[in-house]
Amino acid sequence: MSAASPPARTTPRPRAASRPEGVVTMAHGAGGKASHALVESVFLEAFSNPALAPLNDGAVLDIAGQDVAFTTDSFVVSPIFFPGGSLGDLAVNGTVNDLAACGAQPLALSAGFVIEEGFPVEDLARVVDAMGRSAQRAGVPIVTGDTKVVQRGKGDGCYVNTSGIGLVDRRATGLAASSARPGDAVIISGPIGDHGTAVLLARGELGISADVCSDTAPLNGLVAALLEAVGPAVHVLRDATRGGVATVLNEIAAASGAAIVLDEDDIPVRPQVAGVCELLGIDPLYVACEGRMVVVVARERAGEALRAMRSHPLGAGSAVIGRADADPAGLVLEETSFGGARVVDMLVGDPLPRIC
Amino acid sequence: MSAASPPARTTPRPRAASRPEGVVTMAHGAGGKASHALVESVFLEAFSNPALAPLNDGAVLDIAGQDVAFTTDSFVVSPIFFPGGSLGDLAVNGTVNDLAACGAQPLALSAGFVIEEGFPVEDLARVVDAMGRSAQRAGVPIVTGDTKVVQRGKGDGCYVNTSGIGLVDRRATGLAASSARPGDAVIISGPIGDHGTAVLLARGELGISADVCSDTAPLNGLVAALLEAVGPAVHVLRDATRGGVATVLNEIAAASGAAIVLDEDDIPVRPQVAGVCELLGIDPLYVACEGRMVVVVARERAGEALRAMRSHPLGAGSAVIGRADADPAGLVLEETSFGGARVVDMLVGDPLPRIC
Repeated sequence: MSAASPPARTTPRPRAASRPEGVVTMAHGAGGKASHALVESVFLEAFSNPALAPLNDGAVLDIAGQDVAFTTDSFVVSPIFFPGGSLGDLAVNGTVNDLAACGAQPLALSAGFVIEEGFPVEDLARVVDAMGRSAQRAGVPIVTGDTKVVQRGKGDGCYVNTSGIGLVDRRATGLAASSARPGDAVIISGPIGDHGTAVLLARGELGISADVCSDTAPLNGLVAALLEAVGPAVHVLRDATRGGVATVLNEIAAASGAAIVLDEDDIPVRPQVAGVCELLGIDPLYVACEGRMVVVVARERAGEALRAMRSHPLGAGSAVIGRADADPAGLVLEETSFGGARVVDMLVGDPLPRIC
Repeated sequence: MSAASPPARTTPRPRAASRPEGVVTMAHGAGGKASHALVESVFLEAFSNPALAPLNDGAVLDIAGQDVAFTTDSFVVSPIFFPGGSLGDLAVNGTVNDLAACGAQPLALSAGFVIEEGFPVEDLARVVDAMGRSAQRAGVPIVTGDTKVVQRGKGDGCYVNTSGIGLVDRRATGLAASSARPGDAVIISGPIGDHGTAVLLARGELGISADVCSDTAPLNGLVAALLEAVGPAVHVLRDATRGGVATVLNEIAAASGAAIVLDEDDIPVRPQVAGVCELLGIDPLYVACEGRMVVVVARERAGEALRAMRSHPLGAGSAVIGRADADPAGLVLEETSFGGARVVDMLVGDPLPRIC
């Protein structure tokens, strides 16, 4: 809808998206098309305000002349413990990374627990201890919290919400999904799909075993190193969680109007992750990472950006995986080894529920 | 444990509280003794940091020379809709009130949803619309959010976490549960127990009907009026939610070392709430409110404080209900109409689960 020319006669303003009928389904939680429809039709109108509108990983507010990022995330991963981490690590790293994607260094986290009656105290302590260790690793205090207990059968062990506030780096003020420009380079900070694959295997339902660990990690240090090296040449930062790299890139393409063109051969995927995904018929581009940042950076600074990222322990596997282009506007393409190209669309359903 | 004189020989530092054995029970979520034991033994050590230590309704951080309050709360009320409000109203007002209890005006809220598969979209929209209206009433934007969906049987319709940040009023910097002083007056901003009673009746399991509505309301305006009138004479602000006024007063008594002495005849309770509580054998002092503030104020300014509160629409029913005293240190007493006195202890079990 154009805001420039008012309609000739008064008509009710159409809703941005039609409200889904019926009931909430697992697909509404997958981060793809159904999630977007739900958010746009149910939440955006009721919560309408300028800070919410950009739908980034967090909101940025002015407090006493300082840009402060504010973000929230609930974590419902099943199982709660998996190779490479736990609910506790995810809950801290996920929110630290949402702040990092706003170009912010974390200042403080909150922690809200919804615990199912009967959850072992020892397991709760393991989750909480992991949160404490992850917070220490990220250099952020957990300053406030809340605990609720629900009856048996009204939860799944433990759900954790973390919210975070952080100070936005002054070199990162133009960051937004809409800031991608044709010509920009697209970088990923490491191999994709480790986290989702590790959780999937930990469920033990597939009869597959493979040596895959979650990539969950706090990326605030990596982002600081990147901004130190190339500052405002970074146009977009997004951590690739639910829906994977493909979903994040679709959001960037849609918000910026640019095309994102990937080169299949350049996308880092561990052989064991590629193997599991092939067995299951899942594209690793859609599998959640919890310690990987998608970086869109001005082409002329891409080399410096890549060097800075590779110099950081959590970015050693960084790679340029594609570029922003003018056409096809708003779409994500993947050019294959055989010289073809396919559209990498936004997910419709949810192949991997409860992954984070 | 005294920090002044080191022990003669090296001994392991004892835990502040022994970690509960076994599993989490509903009592751990009730806000009473079991909740405190869980928080102290599991959370405090893992999250140890100066901002967390006071265990107030929120943490206060310094951002660019400005005191900023940060708080979080998860809402799991059952049923989701009840006379006078819904999960949505609670989620906004509860966090606004936690900020108000820090002497802060709300600046921004986050909203995190954990939705059970099968929850009607129409009900979700009602919850979200209530959040939008409540936020507008409190004058605070909801700036960032998150939605997760869990399988049927792993939730209870919808859980909402809200976190909030707010600017602490410069006249409210000494506020803390530990700041109560012998001689202070204790004021409640209106009749107690309405919210918990309304939710309990809405469950329809008791075969009782009575005309009781939740008191859920945002108290930031009331607190602003109070601070405008008496400023730093306000020593403690606490909203009386889970565990009711009795629990809040016990926390104040324990933190300050003062006694809190209530006069039974001065505690405002609506007749229908008193009636329901009597039928069920519950003391209204332990029943949650969601729109009532406990105020501890210097005796010489109590009259002015009361007038200011009564002049505000949400404090019209304010009353002085007691005083802080030197003895019995750390306890809450209620003096009865018959000239006797009883100890109002911290709750052990949970007579009213899932009330907020």
